[in-house]
Amino acid sequence: MFRTAALILAALAAPATADTLRSTGDLGVVIERATGSVLIVDRSDRTALERVEGLGDLSHASVVFSDDARHAFVFGRDGALTKLDLLTGAIVGRVIQAGNSIGGAISDDGDLVAVANYDPGGVRVFDAETLAPVARFDTGAKTIGLVDVPGRRFAFTTWDDGETWIADLSGPEPAVTVIEGIGANPYDALVSGDGRTYIAGLFGEDGLTALDLWQERPVPRRILPGYGRGEEPLPVYKMPHLEGWALAGDRFVLPAVGRHEVLWVDAASFDEVARTRTHGQPVFAVARPGGRQVWVNFAHPLNDTVQVIDTQTAEVLRTLTPGPGVLHMEFSPRGDEVWVSVRDAGTVMIYDTDTFEVVGEIAAESPSGIFFTARAHRIGL
Amino acid sequence: MFRTAALILAALAAPATADTLRSTGDLGVVIERATGSVLIVDRSDRTALERVEGLGDLSHASVVFSDDARHAFVFGRDGALTKLDLLTGAIVGRVIQAGNSIGGAISDDGDLVAVANYDPGGVRVFDAETLAPVARFDTGAKTIGLVDVPGRRFAFTTWDDGETWIADLSGPEPAVTVIEGIGANPYDALVSGDGRTYIAGLFGEDGLTALDLWQERPVPRRILPGYGRGEEPLPVYKMPHLEGWALAGDRFVLPAVGRHEVLWVDAASFDEVARTRTHGQPVFAVARPGGRQVWVNFAHPLNDTVQVIDTQTAEVLRTLTPGPGVLHMEFSPRGDEVWVSVRDAGTVMIYDTDTFEVVGEIAAESPSGIFFTARAHRIGL
Repeated sequence: MFRTAALILAALAAPATADTLRSTGDLGVVIERATGSVLIVDRSDRTALERVEGLGDLSHASVVFSDDARHAFVFGRDGALTKLDLLTGAIVGRVIQAGNSIGGAISDDGDLVAVANYDPGGVRVFDAETLAPVARFDTGAKTIGLVDVPGRRFAFTTWDDGETWIADLSGPEPAVTVIEGIGANPYDALVSGDGRTYIAGLFGEDGLTALDLWQERPVPRRILPGYGRGEEPLPVYKMPHLEGWALAGDRFVLPAVGRHEVLWVDAASFDEVARTRTHGQPVFAVARPGGRQVWVNFAHPLNDTVQVIDTQTAEVLRTLTPGPGVLHMEFSPRGDEVWVSVRDAGTVMIYDTDTFEVVGEIAAESPSGIFFTARAHRIGL
Repeated sequence: MFRTAALILAALAAPATADTLRSTGDLGVVIERATGSVLIVDRSDRTALERVEGLGDLSHASVVFSDDARHAFVFGRDGALTKLDLLTGAIVGRVIQAGNSIGGAISDDGDLVAVANYDPGGVRVFDAETLAPVARFDTGAKTIGLVDVPGRRFAFTTWDDGETWIADLSGPEPAVTVIEGIGANPYDALVSGDGRTYIAGLFGEDGLTALDLWQERPVPRRILPGYGRGEEPLPVYKMPHLEGWALAGDRFVLPAVGRHEVLWVDAASFDEVARTRTHGQPVFAVARPGGRQVWVNFAHPLNDTVQVIDTQTAEVLRTLTPGPGVLHMEFSPRGDEVWVSVRDAGTVMIYDTDTFEVVGEIAAESPSGIFFTARAHRIGL
């Protein structure tokens, strides 16, 4: 709290004027994983505004934003939830809410922030304004795949016994629907951009499980039964992160498991319809907003490269080498640029997505995740 | 310019502090059509922050936002383009760029603002920062249906001779592709949320025309050949506004022409698949973000009512009566609320979209269009 107070004093000493007033629609946060710090960045100026330190273990950090796009909620690996004011650079709230956590979400009305925990498991929900505890869901298991769902709801899944919980916080008391039979050891999950389809990846068996959240009581549906089949078993930390599923037109693109390929999947039937050979084992396959191309990065040791794939032809359009340790890619909201974190070069490279030219670069300490405030206004991010 | 200077001085006299700093992710603009004024509104607080006057003829006004969500560009009916600072309330730029205009757009990189004109016709493009003229496209015709398209491009269509122009401003010189044969008297157009499908409505004949903007040279495709057929001819100002097309799952919902119905259209084939009987002639059919319901308002004299239709069953779920003269509906970005302008009651009603309860109300002078800053980060809005 000492740090917070000091920063607020600094802000008062140098009051903002019309010239220094700043809007927040083009801001973002870059995680500096090794140093427990983040950079506040400005997309328009392609620059870092400020480094904020003292956020703890950010080795697997993620970020959501308040509905007014002023505050970032940073979820650390060490169970810390940190609320950061993007306008002042001050840490305005911080809770060590568990021993080991794995991501969070913010409710569609922006009022509630939820965190999924490995240790002691379950989900804890906090008031977004004050970080006061509001609710907790004791799943009795490691909990993963936490997302926001329309109607002041959250969905999340248990690793140990394969249950998806749908928690509804719209009424005076929280209500929970538990769906069993998701499968063996779900390790991650996503929800589609319309908040309807929740998909869990399975570590303990092949295939994935989909739930239609528009059903009164969703029934698990196994999809892509061959997903992962016939490969060498991978450690769980090498399984593809499901955030990387890209919807391009009527097809999903997703990283193959343990293969140098991306898979093209019909978004309605979930049938695999094509494969594209890639430079390495894909980590993220992220669609440019609009879905015209997909940008793919790769696992060690081929992680100096990014490939751009045309979604109409499923062919590699361009191979780029941003540098050693490409960890994450974040598009500007309408897709004219993409920011690429290059951990071992200590830099964030900014590309024009039409010309593939580098249009900017920002120095950063071991950058990993990049998160822009436009995420505040998307379902399921 | 006098007004601008005065407001900046006021801002300097009362400098913002950490307490008064404001972010812009939850701001918006409500058009007050009769008085040439707008309200700057705050979604989180459900309140009006400020009234800004002197914007001219706003009887058919629309708004786009800068990429940083700080500035609103207001397109007036009288050819005026006004740039409004949402943080200070100051008009920071204003150009009378034509005699009669019909809407505008902002490029995907946020750098260019374009306006479509009836008189003298064509499209003019301005620097979003300075409002200095950058380019003009003299179509020699009334120009409608102007939208942004990925790649620093704009698409627009001519009423007189049925051409769609695709203007590319990504290179050192503007380039234009002209597609002929769109049909007789296109009166409005839209682009799908992925920037791929451009659809023009026709006043001079039945049906609509679609273009696949991902094609090298898009070929016009007639769709919904019965659209409008067999009805009494309507004056053009009574034709449904195409902005009202709602994509819900794999179906579009659109107002029937001159009938008390909405039509359900397969999004892939453009075949009509169902109809829902409604309270009146629909004006806008707008999907709640995520697409679970569609909210519909109606033409005079049945314009005191809004109906909510379930997109799974195509049945009317709820009929509400906000009051006389319901002109527009705008959802919060993730759809938990909807703001409804009720012109003749001088109010904006705010509904919870799950409970249908009124959760707020804002006094306004003859309110019409409502526009939230989250539009800054969507393609084609």
